[in-house]
Amino acid sequence: MAADAPTEVPLSEVPLSEFDRDTAVTRRGPAEPGVYDADLSAGWTIISAVNGGYLLAVLGRALGDALPHSDPFSISAHYLTPSVPGPAVIRTDTVRTGRTLSTGQASLFQYAEDGTEVERIRVLASYGDLDALPDDVRTTAAPPALPPVDQCFGAGDASEGAPPVPGSSAITERLALKIDPATLGWALGRPSGKGEMRAWFELADGRDPDPLSVLLAVDALPPTAFELGLIGWVPTVELTVHVRCRPAPGPLRVSITTRNLAGGFLEEDAEVWDTKDRLVAQSRQLARVRLSQSRPVR
Amino acid sequence: MAADAPTEVPLSEVPLSEFDRDTAVTRRGPAEPGVYDADLSAGWTIISAVNGGYLLAVLGRALGDALPHSDPFSISAHYLTPSVPGPAVIRTDTVRTGRTLSTGQASLFQYAEDGTEVERIRVLASYGDLDALPDDVRTTAAPPALPPVDQCFGAGDASEGAPPVPGSSAITERLALKIDPATLGWALGRPSGKGEMRAWFELADGRDPDPLSVLLAVDALPPTAFELGLIGWVPTVELTVHVRCRPAPGPLRVSITTRNLAGGFLEEDAEVWDTKDRLVAQSRQLARVRLSQSRPVR
Repeated sequence: MAADAPTEVPLSEVPLSEFDRDTAVTRRGPAEPGVYDADLSAGWTIISAVNGGYLLAVLGRALGDALPHSDPFSISAHYLTPSVPGPAVIRTDTVRTGRTLSTGQASLFQYAEDGTEVERIRVLASYGDLDALPDDVRTTAAPPALPPVDQCFGAGDASEGAPPVPGSSAITERLALKIDPATLGWALGRPSGKGEMRAWFELADGRDPDPLSVLLAVDALPPTAFELGLIGWVPTVELTVHVRCRPAPGPLRVSITTRNLAGGFLEEDAEVWDTKDRLVAQSRQLARVRLSQSRPVR
Repeated sequence: MAADAPTEVPLSEVPLSEFDRDTAVTRRGPAEPGVYDADLSAGWTIISAVNGGYLLAVLGRALGDALPHSDPFSISAHYLTPSVPGPAVIRTDTVRTGRTLSTGQASLFQYAEDGTEVERIRVLASYGDLDALPDDVRTTAAPPALPPVDQCFGAGDASEGAPPVPGSSAITERLALKIDPATLGWALGRPSGKGEMRAWFELADGRDPDPLSVLLAVDALPPTAFELGLIGWVPTVELTVHVRCRPAPGPLRVSITTRNLAGGFLEEDAEVWDTKDRLVAQSRQLARVRLSQSRPVR
């Protein structure tokens, strides 16, 4: 009987953070190998939409359990239908296992009113062991030029006379996001016209970053479209993240750039840097630009 | 009987080019929906390895037939095992169909000696209709600074006293690749140390570019690793291409950049520009750096 009982996937040994709690997945019994239950939290929504980076972290955690390797090296997600808070099931498939890399696939489903499963996201990913990589680094990439945290602005800073970050989304309470004022013109009605967004990123409860929270970090800033003077929703079509090293403790710096808005689509390229000035992750997403008169929030 | 016969997927109406012939796929009968046969050509190999961009084009053609939309907007491939010239079967799966975008999955298999199928590549992709996109363009991206074609160097230029491009790979005969001399130091034993590679790209038989040949173009230049002073093989782990518009006729300009080589992996970011100075595609791949003493060829 015990062998058939669902098994909560072990989390890290630090006290359970909001992020770990809300991305937890529970393995179903051996009769359904590779299948996990999750409960998408309303705490990571923008208005009513569940954040795409949070969703990727939930899928990433399931794949890290299902595959013989635990760290996402390259994870590609295609977003199919909007997720909503509530129960979800994740079906994983081990595509290939190798000595240094394993490849897996995962889909997240939710339930329609008639009980049928609706697929929300499908993911292909290659996993490995970041700690097993050699130390060689030959990089021309440099960390983003970000002012110190106390010169950047977050959602809670309105009362201090600073430019308030608009929007009242649940996710802002989970994040200690401090945005570079140079990329905050949109909040004052004066977008820079440059497709740039930069911020210090921490989880609000102080949980240190790891490869899973990095999957959230690449999609947690306001959209660059705001600085391009656009308002409305920018739904992700596809998002690929390359995690290049395990992040050191402390705040991350996230820099997002959009160079090409054309035909109603734009790309967002993100870089994530840690406190040791290492390039932790690179990501790119293709997003649709849905123009509307709604207040610019994300 | 006719209804059960395999159906060659219709190609464009221009005379059959090498590229169209070698990326052709044949739909199996209705008993096997979404299944295609292909024959990987030895003409697109680097030494014995089949080029990853060529393989992506073969999969892309099958998906364009299987899905209700025909143009790849975002296509993500995870490379599992090395492909070899010869028969292959492609199994596609329609994940979701929408009004403007459809999402599909495809896997390419070849046969082991005992006849069992071995998966080579798995792909997730979102397809649409490039011609249906609005004309709006707001871009800060600029075409790469490339010298005129006659000041760049190809594989056939050795006899003219120009720096010869090393390597004797079949694919070089299919491509009219003219490499910017500023990124050709590796061929003279003097790599620049910069992770850059730029070239004019045409199919050798003059076939004009389309979204499928763009999938080849992003992975057809010598690896940036050569300019970083590395030699050996740089196998692709994952490659995602975003096709942003239909290319105009004439040669493409391809610019590839590597910023971060770390832990035995590097990224290659490619941009493809057409003769109308439009950004046709953006791609990123994660590749392994396998150091060896072999001659630097790709």
